[in-house]
Amino acid sequence: MLGLMQDWPLLTHRVIDHAARHHGGREVLSRSVEGPLHRSSYAEVRHRALRLAQRLARDGVRLGDRVATMAWNTWRHLEAWYGITGIGAVYHTLNPRLFPEQIAWILNHAESRMMLADLTFVPLLEQLAPKLPHITRYVILTDAAHMPATSLPGAVDYESFLAEADGDFAWSEFDENTAAGLCYTSGTTGEPKGVLYSHRSNVLHAMACSLPDVFGLAAMDRVMPVVPLFHANGWSLPFSAPLSGAALVMPGPKLDGPSVHALLEEGRVTFTAAVPTVWLALLQHLEATGAALTTLKRVAIGGSACPPRLIEAFTQRGVRVVHAWGMTEMSPVGTVCSMKPETAGLSPQGQLELQAKQGCPPFTVDMRIVGDDGQEKPWDGSTFGNLQVRGPTVTRGYFKTGKSALTEDGWFETGDVATIDAHGYMHVTDRTKDVIKSGGEWISSIELENLAVGHPDVAEAAVVAARHPKWDERPLLILVPKQGRTIEKQSVLDHIAPHVAKWWLPDDVVVVEEIPHTATGKIQKTKLREQFAGYFGAG
Amino acid sequence: MLGLMQDWPLLTHRVIDHAARHHGGREVLSRSVEGPLHRSSYAEVRHRALRLAQRLARDGVRLGDRVATMAWNTWRHLEAWYGITGIGAVYHTLNPRLFPEQIAWILNHAESRMMLADLTFVPLLEQLAPKLPHITRYVILTDAAHMPATSLPGAVDYESFLAEADGDFAWSEFDENTAAGLCYTSGTTGEPKGVLYSHRSNVLHAMACSLPDVFGLAAMDRVMPVVPLFHANGWSLPFSAPLSGAALVMPGPKLDGPSVHALLEEGRVTFTAAVPTVWLALLQHLEATGAALTTLKRVAIGGSACPPRLIEAFTQRGVRVVHAWGMTEMSPVGTVCSMKPETAGLSPQGQLELQAKQGCPPFTVDMRIVGDDGQEKPWDGSTFGNLQVRGPTVTRGYFKTGKSALTEDGWFETGDVATIDAHGYMHVTDRTKDVIKSGGEWISSIELENLAVGHPDVAEAAVVAARHPKWDERPLLILVPKQGRTIEKQSVLDHIAPHVAKWWLPDDVVVVEEIPHTATGKIQKTKLREQFAGYFGAG
Repeated sequence: MLGLMQDWPLLTHRVIDHAARHHGGREVLSRSVEGPLHRSSYAEVRHRALRLAQRLARDGVRLGDRVATMAWNTWRHLEAWYGITGIGAVYHTLNPRLFPEQIAWILNHAESRMMLADLTFVPLLEQLAPKLPHITRYVILTDAAHMPATSLPGAVDYESFLAEADGDFAWSEFDENTAAGLCYTSGTTGEPKGVLYSHRSNVLHAMACSLPDVFGLAAMDRVMPVVPLFHANGWSLPFSAPLSGAALVMPGPKLDGPSVHALLEEGRVTFTAAVPTVWLALLQHLEATGAALTTLKRVAIGGSACPPRLIEAFTQRGVRVVHAWGMTEMSPVGTVCSMKPETAGLSPQGQLELQAKQGCPPFTVDMRIVGDDGQEKPWDGSTFGNLQVRGPTVTRGYFKTGKSALTEDGWFETGDVATIDAHGYMHVTDRTKDVIKSGGEWISSIELENLAVGHPDVAEAAVVAARHPKWDERPLLILVPKQGRTIEKQSVLDHIAPHVAKWWLPDDVVVVEEIPHTATGKIQKTKLREQFAGYFGAG
Repeated sequence: MLGLMQDWPLLTHRVIDHAARHHGGREVLSRSVEGPLHRSSYAEVRHRALRLAQRLARDGVRLGDRVATMAWNTWRHLEAWYGITGIGAVYHTLNPRLFPEQIAWILNHAESRMMLADLTFVPLLEQLAPKLPHITRYVILTDAAHMPATSLPGAVDYESFLAEADGDFAWSEFDENTAAGLCYTSGTTGEPKGVLYSHRSNVLHAMACSLPDVFGLAAMDRVMPVVPLFHANGWSLPFSAPLSGAALVMPGPKLDGPSVHALLEEGRVTFTAAVPTVWLALLQHLEATGAALTTLKRVAIGGSACPPRLIEAFTQRGVRVVHAWGMTEMSPVGTVCSMKPETAGLSPQGQLELQAKQGCPPFTVDMRIVGDDGQEKPWDGSTFGNLQVRGPTVTRGYFKTGKSALTEDGWFETGDVATIDAHGYMHVTDRTKDVIKSGGEWISSIELENLAVGHPDVAEAAVVAARHPKWDERPLLILVPKQGRTIEKQSVLDHIAPHVAKWWLPDDVVVVEEIPHTATGKIQKTKLREQFAGYFGAG
């Protein structure tokens, strides 16, 4: 027997409808790619998104078509998402920091038929366009006055494109499981894989992210997603901010410390979100200039593990750190380190240590840790296991692969190794590929690296498994010295030793001038592993 | 094209699964019907709910079967909801304050096949049982030691019933639109009507209610639903508290001022919810004894309009009033009066006046006001209109009627008359049936009544429309004097006059000894209207 409640599918355009109707005047403040600040509102964003939807439909964009965006966080990019999804098409975000060949590969795999791009990326796209047969039109996210001469096929500036529609248009209606967004993960190995979000997953994710123990978004908040929209759905903020009626402050292309600080202040931002490197740059700027954060209350930090000194620095400035963990395949938010009664009585130092953990999943996400045999591991805060997740905002398979990405019993393998403590706080200790398996026990490469970079002479550190005749694998520490410094191997090992079990200590240290990185700035451990696999003489 | 996210239906038992797994030790503290306080946890509630599910299944309870509950808020009632819905059966809550004939009518209409009832209600049920042919078994929510001798068919105490199952059982899986709960509305006229909630509507409603601008529930909260579970889903709290990991404090049968206060303190409650009469009794107790509220932060007030003095009294005690509005047909929460930037700068007096409004809908609820012609009315804070709502937590039709309860364009008529101001704050000004339509303009009976009860001699007031030869209808004020006082008609009119337009002033005042009430304590205006329809001499 079915209930008798209204049929009201969870569609992303209902989010902007709600914002426009109940928070219509709320500000959307953006730094434009052209330079000046731009002020809009949810009512205006919705109206222009409707015009975009109408205009796209007139160009023949249909349900399921992919429309690519290569753009910074601005009001136009926000409008584009709602305009595209409002007719059942799919926003396909591209990370411009990828290698050009990867971008071309992704666009061709996605068969995206149109591209909305910022001025910044016109030269790159002109170079790529001949290799992109599916894209028939390039809409440049600017106005006629700023439109460059370009060889891009069907090129038109966004404002002129929009001007051809009057907004006398209605959103399409369709099943809430319809695809809404597409984002490719760029692993350190293999081809990129497309994660295909649905309207339902986007809306549920936005609701879950707005909860008090996640981002806690309210109409009184002013939210600045420094994390780009092309970085896994902008961590829900393009949906969760309007859903909650919070104002949006969009940083455009300027993500350096001084620019981020200026906009946090100008925009009276209360909540912001980005990866640790952005915040390290901001804090450097604050320390150098003595400037303050006068309105900021909470900062979400994720994308990679948050260094404890970042948590400490923000806490000292009266800003609460919301340490979050997730992945593109999770929409992306998976866990958040929020307080529970069991942990509320910790000392300030204990709180800081707790906040270094990635935390607990909100409703809609479940997690577990399992051994290589698939058996669930205990929640004791010390046992390592492969972290698996499930829920309505977690992917079940990649675009155009035609196969499941799940375990037989329906869980998604995150590729992370983690512990979970007795209160349910998850702590990522390593990547499955990077963890060192020494005599049946697991050693965290990340923990060793974090300790190593705490040494005053060390600029960057990588720990990789090298094959070992007795223990299968043993950790090898690879270091880059700070400019003008010399690294004493034993001094670094002595620095690490008090903090880890004796058998965790790397068997040797190698000092190098440079460590290889991926296009997105991550250490390329595969390369290091290949290079140093035989270091201890095992075959 | 569909997205590639996991299929994870929104089922109510996933809420208790989440709570048991991620907040397993969190307390569920109850005042038992037998007397003493009882301490449980989400892990235990889930385990016992599983056993109940298993036991019910063994008794032949199947998907879609209705299982009635007539019970106070306790851990057992909570377990019962999850146990019943966990096998796809439907909890059917009964309001014991209804007339016995109404209860029998409802149970027979619902064809509920089993009854879970508190000790309190055994005498009532013994009297009703012969008229309830569908109910084959009565489970009394107590243990063997407290089980009374009873003539009820198949009577068994809950603990013995539960003891026959070991909990080695799995929840059923089914479509999220499956019916989960049934609650009959008892209007002032006509037969009761059954609202049939789905798993999906319950879960979405719990998520929406947990949002910061609604109840704002977090794991650090301790939530006391004084509002009974039989009062429209307990305002989501049996779902939203575990979903958020908040502790639950259940008041059992004792809802008087001193008992509520004692449990607020003993349970270290941070958030509570009930109708105004409960809070008036609590404040009376606090004033009489000089006792304080040492942990309470927020109080949700709904069910009927919240008197401004209640808002003032809580505010003075440092407790934020969350003025909410809803109806059984809305799961029930429809709007909440929370702050927006546009209203944050109001003076304390302005804030109080704002908080007297019912406020704004969260995402998942939309609302509008329309005239009798169905045309939408402006949001100017003064124009009256019939309030209509829609969304996934709003009913589309009543149980076993086989017809839609919606307008042609899909909106649900609330039966309330309201204004909406420029910032989107809704204010219920009257019931559609009670509003006085005088010369084409609408006059609020509620506003006049609120003003009248502010007069020192007035105990209770009702304003009804009486037919009028010139204006169609005119307001007539009916008053009950306070004990030992005499009412001077002109003095009351003079008291009202400065606060309303001249043409709103009642044409006459009638003083009576008593005003008729419904079983749930509402003024029976139909009766008064019939009695006084011809008062002004019009036919």
